[in-house]
Amino acid sequence: MSVTSATPLLDTVDTPADLRKLQPAQLRQLSDELRTEMISAVGQTGGHLGSGLGVVELTTAIHYVFNTPDDRLIWDVGHQAYPHKIITGRRSRMRTLRQGGGLSGFTKRSESEYDPFGTAHSSTSISAAIGFAIANKIAGQPGKAIAVIGDGAMSAGMAYEAMNNAHGAGNRLVVILNDNDMSIAPPVGGLSAYLARLVSSRPFLELRDLARRISRRLPEPLHKAAKKTDSFARGMAMGGTLFEELGFYYVGPIDGHNLDQLIPVLENVRDAAEGPCLVHVVTQKGKGYGPAEKAADKYHGVQKFDVITGEQVKSAGGPPSYTNVFAQALLAEATRDSTICAITAAMPSGTGLDKFQKTFPDRTFDVGIAEQHAVTFAAGLAAQGMRPFCAIYSTFLQRAYDQVVHDVAIQNLPVRFAIDRAGLVGADGATHAGSFDITYLASLPNMVVMAAADEAELVHMTHTAALHDSGPIAFRYPRGNGTGVALPEVPLRLEIGKGRIVREGTKVALLSLGTRLAEALKAADTLDAKGLSTTVADLRFAKPLDEELIRRLMATHDVVVTIEEGSIGGLGAHVLTMASDEGLTDAGLKIRTMRLPDVFQDHDNPDRQYDTAGLNAPQIVDTVLKALRHNSAGVQEARA
Amino acid sequence: MSVTSATPLLDTVDTPADLRKLQPAQLRQLSDELRTEMISAVGQTGGHLGSGLGVVELTTAIHYVFNTPDDRLIWDVGHQAYPHKIITGRRSRMRTLRQGGGLSGFTKRSESEYDPFGTAHSSTSISAAIGFAIANKIAGQPGKAIAVIGDGAMSAGMAYEAMNNAHGAGNRLVVILNDNDMSIAPPVGGLSAYLARLVSSRPFLELRDLARRISRRLPEPLHKAAKKTDSFARGMAMGGTLFEELGFYYVGPIDGHNLDQLIPVLENVRDAAEGPCLVHVVTQKGKGYGPAEKAADKYHGVQKFDVITGEQVKSAGGPPSYTNVFAQALLAEATRDSTICAITAAMPSGTGLDKFQKTFPDRTFDVGIAEQHAVTFAAGLAAQGMRPFCAIYSTFLQRAYDQVVHDVAIQNLPVRFAIDRAGLVGADGATHAGSFDITYLASLPNMVVMAAADEAELVHMTHTAALHDSGPIAFRYPRGNGTGVALPEVPLRLEIGKGRIVREGTKVALLSLGTRLAEALKAADTLDAKGLSTTVADLRFAKPLDEELIRRLMATHDVVVTIEEGSIGGLGAHVLTMASDEGLTDAGLKIRTMRLPDVFQDHDNPDRQYDTAGLNAPQIVDTVLKALRHNSAGVQEARA
Repeated sequence: MSVTSATPLLDTVDTPADLRKLQPAQLRQLSDELRTEMISAVGQTGGHLGSGLGVVELTTAIHYVFNTPDDRLIWDVGHQAYPHKIITGRRSRMRTLRQGGGLSGFTKRSESEYDPFGTAHSSTSISAAIGFAIANKIAGQPGKAIAVIGDGAMSAGMAYEAMNNAHGAGNRLVVILNDNDMSIAPPVGGLSAYLARLVSSRPFLELRDLARRISRRLPEPLHKAAKKTDSFARGMAMGGTLFEELGFYYVGPIDGHNLDQLIPVLENVRDAAEGPCLVHVVTQKGKGYGPAEKAADKYHGVQKFDVITGEQVKSAGGPPSYTNVFAQALLAEATRDSTICAITAAMPSGTGLDKFQKTFPDRTFDVGIAEQHAVTFAAGLAAQGMRPFCAIYSTFLQRAYDQVVHDVAIQNLPVRFAIDRAGLVGADGATHAGSFDITYLASLPNMVVMAAADEAELVHMTHTAALHDSGPIAFRYPRGNGTGVALPEVPLRLEIGKGRIVREGTKVALLSLGTRLAEALKAADTLDAKGLSTTVADLRFAKPLDEELIRRLMATHDVVVTIEEGSIGGLGAHVLTMASDEGLTDAGLKIRTMRLPDVFQDHDNPDRQYDTAGLNAPQIVDTVLKALRHNSAGVQEARA
Repeated sequence: MSVTSATPLLDTVDTPADLRKLQPAQLRQLSDELRTEMISAVGQTGGHLGSGLGVVELTTAIHYVFNTPDDRLIWDVGHQAYPHKIITGRRSRMRTLRQGGGLSGFTKRSESEYDPFGTAHSSTSISAAIGFAIANKIAGQPGKAIAVIGDGAMSAGMAYEAMNNAHGAGNRLVVILNDNDMSIAPPVGGLSAYLARLVSSRPFLELRDLARRISRRLPEPLHKAAKKTDSFARGMAMGGTLFEELGFYYVGPIDGHNLDQLIPVLENVRDAAEGPCLVHVVTQKGKGYGPAEKAADKYHGVQKFDVITGEQVKSAGGPPSYTNVFAQALLAEATRDSTICAITAAMPSGTGLDKFQKTFPDRTFDVGIAEQHAVTFAAGLAAQGMRPFCAIYSTFLQRAYDQVVHDVAIQNLPVRFAIDRAGLVGADGATHAGSFDITYLASLPNMVVMAAADEAELVHMTHTAALHDSGPIAFRYPRGNGTGVALPEVPLRLEIGKGRIVREGTKVALLSLGTRLAEALKAADTLDAKGLSTTVADLRFAKPLDEELIRRLMATHDVVVTIEEGSIGGLGAHVLTMASDEGLTDAGLKIRTMRLPDVFQDHDNPDRQYDTAGLNAPQIVDTVLKALRHNSAGVQEARA
């Protein structure tokens, strides 16, 4: 039995233009088929499931009512856009989702004209939509911009900045607040509590009420004057005033799975003469798929799974993940030291802090999607004597760069940055790669930057950070599982700015930072077999550098190669700068720096990504051999 | 006549402890004297005047009511903290404000225990205050945290993120919203309009009303139950619901110059058993000093001035500022091209875009203090065919780093970044230095990074950016006046990634990026006089590098020195990386990189700052000579 045989109506819809030929009464069936198709596809690929299931009807309704792609639809974060992909010409590629060469797990401009703006990090959609709307306004051309944004994403400052600037976009801007009371983790903060009150304070608007309220709230075309009746005043008093106060027309709450509500409301909003409008839609994450509805995380992100049972393919066991090792190590530190606390920006599970939270609920702070606040809040904690660990993915710490510079580094406050997802991250692709943190952190005075070579090192680094009170310190570690080394029973306090020799040689020195160490050791075996005796050092610190060690290795080896899981400007640059400052290369010394290439790499499996990046063992060997050949090609003889 | 003779009461107040010995009735006089003293001091030093004048009474009242320094007082931005400095032990040093070695123009931890958190960039205070409050809560020790934040600063997403997380701080957190309807420029956006409605909708609360409202809104100690009376309900309907919705007790609006209101309100808020509280205080920027009250910008930032007349010392004419040159150049581009538009984040005057706005009001967007939104909004505009110029200071662009990476660079959208205040900035000190942009931008794939060597180059670069549609492009230029070169009548379109030889030599090559070019040329004169024939190149591009030019200069010169007004990881690192990638240094070549040192430099005049940084002509000469000596010390002979 073919799974797609269950989707006769969907089979007729390749693009929204096809969808718009259907009768409203057919949209229910279409939505059901869309849901079936999505479950089937994600069952084969894994990916984000719960979010997409929650917006099936919304996806159908938006494309039915608005004139996409000329009306610009922007899905905030974009991981809920799988149904959107299916009905915008990408159905045949859905089973390549998140695979190398396949569809992205987010929206992406290069994939489709129906993706006018790429998303992946949260809370960007309103700002971008305002840009589209205002560009159309300036050009005097038609076209709306619709941002669909979750309640979790609304907790980010960026969304607020955009709402504060929405007025100029006028009725070209429609914001659809997709309120599923759940971003990745359960929601936190004042806004979330406010939305809950808003939803609980009254039932979903009845269609008749809706029409009346909309007609009163939105000028033209329905009514010319909005009389202040009692019911209207009541609506004002409780309904959506926060958004009203920022200049939106608020409509809602609306049942986001009821097409009979969604379609007329969106039609009214579309035709409103003034704006901007915010439509508050309530949806259920995981809607329509039993196993997802029942799961605590609503199948936010899943492995491949059995469509009937919902059972996910288990990953093959193996060593613990870096995330878990960090979480356990921090727990141990916090047990010892009551000033240690932990901060996450809406990623308690992703950072492993959910475990910490269970033991130390009073010392755990999930601030929502609010990295800027997270970092400066941590700075305040540190200034008052706490030892805060800010656990933020490398790519998301970019959101708080100024706070790291201005509130932490300049003041030299001992905030600990636990930087997960450093380096390439696999299926999430370029938007989530942790490529730049070594560069953007090691350039800051006062900052200490470490990278763990394996999970035992991560334990040491967590301990070292806990004890480091003299200023800020960051340590990075990758997505995925450790190497399987034994974890230390007693963690070491590492000496700041000191690396370690992992293997001694005489001719080639590989200076590794982070988990490329394993590849460096493989490369060393190969080089040794070729008669090139190879030293491998784990530098541990990108800043401060172990200058003594580097100086010594440069003085005693013919070729020195740095290897890191980061962009230009990081470890390699710091080593080269030190060497040139000291004139170590003046007499001729082969230094090479291996780093991430100057491209945004698409999603793929991490090992292939590192192969593409040229950071696996064979490429390390090649780099050394090439450097030596360059030598023998005649410029100068190597030292004996 | 000594100016201080006018301040008999203030003369008795060295710290807040002295202040708290006064009778409430004396605080009016004290405030007047504080104002007099501040005007006198800033008259001698220049600095931020209007903001401090607006908060004289508030400063007095806060220190009178709260137990500083144990209660932690955080002035957002901190440029309004001059009165605070005067009464917290720093009066004798007030006339060193913003001078080298003198007091900072902002709050600073190293200056005083009364500055628990350094500020300068806006909108950090609530996050930090929550940190202090929660640290006290965890430690079970007393102590409140008070954040004083302007209405302009409230437009930043960071402030919203903090408000959204205020609940956990409970009554230890007090936020004082200092609403002067004016940040640096007149306010923009939905929040500002909302605050204006709030203030205009009713008169300042009468003391009796205040007491009643506070007692009803704040549980204990005044009333046990808050009855819903008509007047209370009216207060709820209009008053401060936005803040209430985010979880604050809202009190206000209050006349911020009326001590008879401020003191009892703050006392009530201090003693409230629950919280957090937001006190909405209305003040007048420049209050109490005629010339400031009359000026459009309320003397936000001033030169030294005559206290009687308010007349400011005029700067000595000279060449136009880089800011003005950019503004004129952009105007010319926009006249030619109707898709060009300009975006500022609350800095229309600082970026020169006020001029642009006059001519092209529909193509100018002041988004408020909202750099994140500014950049992604620009990305949206670019995606819809506009040619946006984001004019943001280097230090403030840090606020939007993730947006530059995720929304602009990854999508390769042609957003133009006009980066003012690049390099060291003088009196504003470390918090405002534009030190890191070359490093954090040039590490990004797709990004083009230019730096103007003089104001004519800035015109060319503005033109080049306007025509560059294939991806993002940034150009940086410093604070202050140009070099006096003639401005081009017709701007050139620079070839991307191509530098220029400014002066030909044979032995030493100086590779300059940015306005150190003048120093490089001076250094070249000195070196030539010593018989060291010197080439000077203006690389123009940190990315992409002019590899051909660099290769050639490396092949033909004995010493190559890069010079830039930026941190490690920038131009020098890119040149070294290219050279080592290609093996150009394998045979021995003296490369040195001159860059900002690895410290946060305090405020001083820019020339002295660059001297301290080691980036003036004499240090360039020294670097070259040392490199040559290193050579002659015996390692290897230089090429003939």
